[in-house]
Amino acid sequence: MTTNKKLFDALSASAKSLPESGIVELMNYGRRREGTVALWAGEGDLPTPDFISDAAARSLKSGETFYTWQRGIPELREQLALYHHRLYGVPADPERYFVCGSGMQAIQIAFAMTTSAGDEVIIPSPTWPNAAAAALVIGAKPVYVEMDFGANGFSLDPSKIEKLINSRTRTIFLNTPSNPSGWVATLDDLKSVLALARKHGLWIVADEIYARFYWKGAERSPSFRDVMEPEDRIIFVNTFSKNWAMTGWRIGWVETHPSLAQVVENLIQYSTSGVAVFMQRAGIAALDKGENFVRHMIERSRKGREITVNVLGKSNRVRLAPPDGAFYAFFSVEGERDSRALAMKLIDEAGVGLAPGTAFGPGAEPFLRLCFARGPESVELVVNRIADWLKR
Amino acid sequence: MTTNKKLFDALSASAKSLPESGIVELMNYGRRREGTVALWAGEGDLPTPDFISDAAARSLKSGETFYTWQRGIPELREQLALYHHRLYGVPADPERYFVCGSGMQAIQIAFAMTTSAGDEVIIPSPTWPNAAAAALVIGAKPVYVEMDFGANGFSLDPSKIEKLINSRTRTIFLNTPSNPSGWVATLDDLKSVLALARKHGLWIVADEIYARFYWKGAERSPSFRDVMEPEDRIIFVNTFSKNWAMTGWRIGWVETHPSLAQVVENLIQYSTSGVAVFMQRAGIAALDKGENFVRHMIERSRKGREITVNVLGKSNRVRLAPPDGAFYAFFSVEGERDSRALAMKLIDEAGVGLAPGTAFGPGAEPFLRLCFARGPESVELVVNRIADWLKR
Repeated sequence: MTTNKKLFDALSASAKSLPESGIVELMNYGRRREGTVALWAGEGDLPTPDFISDAAARSLKSGETFYTWQRGIPELREQLALYHHRLYGVPADPERYFVCGSGMQAIQIAFAMTTSAGDEVIIPSPTWPNAAAAALVIGAKPVYVEMDFGANGFSLDPSKIEKLINSRTRTIFLNTPSNPSGWVATLDDLKSVLALARKHGLWIVADEIYARFYWKGAERSPSFRDVMEPEDRIIFVNTFSKNWAMTGWRIGWVETHPSLAQVVENLIQYSTSGVAVFMQRAGIAALDKGENFVRHMIERSRKGREITVNVLGKSNRVRLAPPDGAFYAFFSVEGERDSRALAMKLIDEAGVGLAPGTAFGPGAEPFLRLCFARGPESVELVVNRIADWLKR
Repeated sequence: MTTNKKLFDALSASAKSLPESGIVELMNYGRRREGTVALWAGEGDLPTPDFISDAAARSLKSGETFYTWQRGIPELREQLALYHHRLYGVPADPERYFVCGSGMQAIQIAFAMTTSAGDEVIIPSPTWPNAAAAALVIGAKPVYVEMDFGANGFSLDPSKIEKLINSRTRTIFLNTPSNPSGWVATLDDLKSVLALARKHGLWIVADEIYARFYWKGAERSPSFRDVMEPEDRIIFVNTFSKNWAMTGWRIGWVETHPSLAQVVENLIQYSTSGVAVFMQRAGIAALDKGENFVRHMIERSRKGREITVNVLGKSNRVRLAPPDGAFYAFFSVEGERDSRALAMKLIDEAGVGLAPGTAFGPGAEPFLRLCFARGPESVELVVNRIADWLKR
């Protein structure tokens, strides 16, 4: 690639400040090594089921290829309302839901709604790196709260959040269940964070996309919906990616108070101008007929988690707290402080592609992230390769 | 809808500053009137042709539903390089092209690359409103240069641009052929704007998406590619929407110097994280096998233009300069200064949906925009309805 320093230097400060994704870096490294089993990405090994893809294909065939509603087609917003009603017991109000081009775009929209250049966004860490980067894109500053790590894994101390709040703070980004750490906020955690937001007039951007992947015996993880009032400043971001094996589709949604509808519509209009109708038909099929498939996905992850925890837990070099939610094992290896170098070694020497903790913010550096949302044979193969490599 | 002023007030200044699209407002008004022929949007009446949709359906069927390359799949970048090589005679370099989720998103990315909060973007007006709004989203300020209007339609005086350049100016957004006015920059116009950009160290965001819809006897309109050097600070934004009847798909591309690739990749990663592979397969089919279809689209627009100019030109109440490019007639009606009110009257009394000039920036207020990218019968019906209404 040509390097042209002068051209690069002329870019905006925020564009220049963006880090390359540390996950993508490893993927690019590992793609070249044949035989690498790749568990670095946050996706499983199943393609989208036919009943979803076929709905898109039928829509395409019927010529639904024109511009459409910026907020999403009414039928999909209706299905989103019903889905949330079933899962959370909230009133089914389609006016709360806005279809957009991925959970990532939902975060971008939520930050644009709440945060200006120079403002600060508080983000508990370890964290999926893209939220902080989305703040950088608009010239805002991500401020990390390091979570505490102990024998039971990570925990969040709300008083640490409060210490970081100042006059530039606008937003708290909370991801529960957490990618990468598997931490899940308790109802008390959520109440504490909400109390802080109320006290200081902050917004909460709530990323609960792994809610269904919850390993503590309930159908879904605790949610801000369980503790909030309608007037609270909360914007939920969500995606079809994980529950319905639709990572490649790029379709998600924003959920917030209906009085903000015009602002959300404008932000969709002026960024991607809506989502293809045929994609939205697939979303309708997923919500309306996808419950069995989602349960299947959850069961696979439950088994993947079990295998991972059992096998890696036996190694006395591995420090792994069984995750309470999401579909990642986040573990460190005794004597290995540089997870980026370790991830590269595992590619070269064990044929296993993991994501390095260095990609996941402060406090995550010594860890590796392994995605176990796959068939049991595949998970077994990988964790045994790792266990064998550790014994060498 | 619930109004909640307190919640709205707590939003970011830039989110609150966004205008509702003046086109969408009219669409919402007109959708309720049965029998309205809608020519308010920038799209024709043909669905995407089967050879394109089928490519997407095949890809879906084969399970291409996983995460993919942030920059676009290599085969599509290759096809984009060949397409530009054929049309512009530029070297076929796939590293210059980056697939994203619409021409609109290409603009958002280009502004994020070049412009920070507080900076200024110069935009000749009349203009498609979304470019200015995309600047507002990131807290930048759109600064309009009013184009001159005379017997031959609009023209751009570069000295007017230079007068507006100050220490906050970062970017000139130039759309040629122009939506809505049909103005097309000459090679001399392009040279003048480029000279200004070079002199003042500015970026040019070049929107030449209507290049193929050019009514002055060449295959495509003059382009910055005809006058630039590789090192010039130019970012092209583009879309599959218009040439291939893919408005509803939301797929476009950014074209710029390969040395900026990592920055474009990051901005895609942190906004929508790429475009579905099955969408990209459709893009490949469009570029590889779509030339006859594009020519068909152009011929329909050529006829639509002819009919519109002939019929409306006969009315002595209409002031209409035949457009040099794009697929819009942009005209004013004697005695009607308020185009928003006039557009509503035309919906109610003539059954015709046009976009009001009020949506298109300073200098556009008295005009109406009519999209003639449709079958001749449909265009004839509409322009006769308007002509009849004018005679009343």
